[in-house]
Amino acid sequence: LEDGDKSEVYDLVEPLHPADVADLFELVGREDRSALAEAVSDLLSSEVISELNDYVREDMIDALPAYAVAEIAEQLETDDAVQLIEDLDPRDQAAVLAEMEPEDRAAIESALSYPEETAGRLMQREFVAVPEHITVGDLIDFLRDEASDPDALPTDFFEIFVVDPAHRPVGTCQLSWILRTPRHIGLTDVMKRDQTLIPVTADQEEVALMFQKYGLISAAVVDEAGRLVGQMTVDDVVHIISEEAGEDALLLSGAGDGDINEPILLTVRARLTWLVINLGTAMLAASVVGMFQDAIAKFALLAVLMPIVSGMGGNAGTQTLAVTVRALATNQLTSTNTWRAIGRELTIASANGVALAILIGGGTALVFGNPLLGAVIGTAMIINNLTAGMAGIAVPVTLERLRVDPAVSSAVFVTTATDVMGFFSFLGLAVLTGLA
Amino acid sequence: LEDGDKSEVYDLVEPLHPADVADLFELVGREDRSALAEAVSDLLSSEVISELNDYVREDMIDALPAYAVAEIAEQLETDDAVQLIEDLDPRDQAAVLAEMEPEDRAAIESALSYPEETAGRLMQREFVAVPEHITVGDLIDFLRDEASDPDALPTDFFEIFVVDPAHRPVGTCQLSWILRTPRHIGLTDVMKRDQTLIPVTADQEEVALMFQKYGLISAAVVDEAGRLVGQMTVDDVVHIISEEAGEDALLLSGAGDGDINEPILLTVRARLTWLVINLGTAMLAASVVGMFQDAIAKFALLAVLMPIVSGMGGNAGTQTLAVTVRALATNQLTSTNTWRAIGRELTIASANGVALAILIGGGTALVFGNPLLGAVIGTAMIINNLTAGMAGIAVPVTLERLRVDPAVSSAVFVTTATDVMGFFSFLGLAVLTGLA
Repeated sequence: LEDGDKSEVYDLVEPLHPADVADLFELVGREDRSALAEAVSDLLSSEVISELNDYVREDMIDALPAYAVAEIAEQLETDDAVQLIEDLDPRDQAAVLAEMEPEDRAAIESALSYPEETAGRLMQREFVAVPEHITVGDLIDFLRDEASDPDALPTDFFEIFVVDPAHRPVGTCQLSWILRTPRHIGLTDVMKRDQTLIPVTADQEEVALMFQKYGLISAAVVDEAGRLVGQMTVDDVVHIISEEAGEDALLLSGAGDGDINEPILLTVRARLTWLVINLGTAMLAASVVGMFQDAIAKFALLAVLMPIVSGMGGNAGTQTLAVTVRALATNQLTSTNTWRAIGRELTIASANGVALAILIGGGTALVFGNPLLGAVIGTAMIINNLTAGMAGIAVPVTLERLRVDPAVSSAVFVTTATDVMGFFSFLGLAVLTGLA
Repeated sequence: LEDGDKSEVYDLVEPLHPADVADLFELVGREDRSALAEAVSDLLSSEVISELNDYVREDMIDALPAYAVAEIAEQLETDDAVQLIEDLDPRDQAAVLAEMEPEDRAAIESALSYPEETAGRLMQREFVAVPEHITVGDLIDFLRDEASDPDALPTDFFEIFVVDPAHRPVGTCQLSWILRTPRHIGLTDVMKRDQTLIPVTADQEEVALMFQKYGLISAAVVDEAGRLVGQMTVDDVVHIISEEAGEDALLLSGAGDGDINEPILLTVRARLTWLVINLGTAMLAASVVGMFQDAIAKFALLAVLMPIVSGMGGNAGTQTLAVTVRALATNQLTSTNTWRAIGRELTIASANGVALAILIGGGTALVFGNPLLGAVIGTAMIINNLTAGMAGIAVPVTLERLRVDPAVSSAVFVTTATDVMGFFSFLGLAVLTGLA
């Protein structure tokens, strides 16, 4: 297909939704993308560009001249335009901004003045705000008037924000409430005064949690003085929620960004950094084994069994860690219930430790006809499960208190603890009991 | 606070949002929940109940008589009512349903007839559908009329579905489009004909992906005959997205449901099952070491170094696995680009393998003054990194093809591969080269 008939490709792509066209670009190989782009250039709307994966988009945008990027950006709502421009290097950014209409440029520059991943950067600057004391009828007339000017209203909106003369939000009206209310009723009688306001400085993770918790469709973003400056809508927040929730598995494993479109060198660097850190901890654990070389030389069966103790501890620690990181991320684990959660994990660790100790201890005693060896490995298993449970919760909770993302760095500490303690308890007990 | 003054507790809880009251119940210990419930019983609205964590809600619902549960369920929209009732045991379920109004009961029974986690179970049965050929003005008048009957309209809605005489959706209108359009315009001129329809049998994961991909606010759910039977709204889908994205880290670690409110016995059972499976694979890996007992007895340093090779392979495998599982879950990895992705992972594995081999091989040669030992551990490291990369992508992709959730079972296979290959390549090479 790809090698020849452009018009056929065009016909196939034409009926697709912009999001599907974007997916198509991600699925074809890097080398085929420009050929595809040429074949379907009319279909490369700004929607398609804004749906593209960050890395793929960067790739395509880099190939375009500044005026073309500026043209695409102007068709987008501010939040999508900012996404397009924020990843460019500073020189290209300036070139694109210079090509834009002064009004759009100002909006984007203002967005870029906020730190990445904050509400100020992510919000949409288009929204509908009306004064108090107007009626439902006034509002509908106002919207119909504005609709004649294509730039006046956002394409889609879900709520009307009611503001006081200082532009501070006093209430919010879902459109469905307006549609079912007679024209003569005042907006203040329809609106909900209780609303969730998002500070411009709020981190995207907080924003995502608010939307989830309160089931929001859109929410007003306010500046330090409490003035309405933008809105966040749920369709954008959905991407943040999925990203934030999905990244824990990637961060816990040290896989970096974990995007399969990431340039390979960045991926190697991210993963290798993590592996080298883990190499350090593996050597630490190995040095514990080194203390017992004589015992192992005398009784090599110890070397056969020791990875079981450390490995099972590692597994149990990873379980506790995954649960704790998730509970911290969703605000289910707070300072109020930390002690209860620690008690819970230690109870689970004891139960699992004893069960595993009976299995492996009993098995070892029978298979090797050596009850003392069975008792040693069983005891070590209990000790290491408790270590795993303790480290699995204490490490992420402590990192969170220190304002370090627990998903990023917990795993090193936890597996170091279970490796070191696994080898030390098993080999140490073996020597103490005179097994070797 | 908790031990005494009920009215003070009431005053503190009263101004909170239902979602915050629900959080409060989750944060206090199990033993304090009934005291708190008694103190704030008037504030325990159906919204609070529907916001509660599944396990906490089950606990509270179990304590209530059937008629009280039925009363709460009737105040909820069908999707929330179903959530409340689906977890009850069959006898309690029947008792609650018997206490409900026939109409509500029928809606819930119909929902329960669909499998869990499908659109049929999760959808809201309240929605606004109107015939073609009415005007914007007719629609507004209709909504204002209906509004006088509190049960006629859903509390919030975001879209109007336009249906043909057979009740099949022909288009959808966002409320903002209606509000900005003059009364005399026909709805068919406002609505969008291209719409995303959700089959009743769609799995919640598919639904979540559609909402994310197309930025939907709500979508029509249709039965086998294409008739509109319900709607899904983004506020419900947000929970699904967060759950589906967040559960990968938990599933990969075998932590089961991973909810800190889960009854402890269920948690122990889920985690122990996983640990026992891993015990099996750990013993398999140990048996590989067992084949080399003589070599280890002669040269105990091998036992000191072998966990480094297997551990690093495990880390690298987990990285690839986390990335692959995420890419599969978000549909970024499909049959089109599998080979490209495999090539990518093997390139990364080679690069990381060589880098680690130089570090650990060089270090070993220097520290122990034994270049052959350095060469052996370096080579084993490269072999095991390639094993990790290969297994990390091939295992989840194969499981996905077999329609098994790759997040649930991949980790066992991958770590077995890296453990076995880590020990075998290192100890095997040591014997082959005459080191021991």
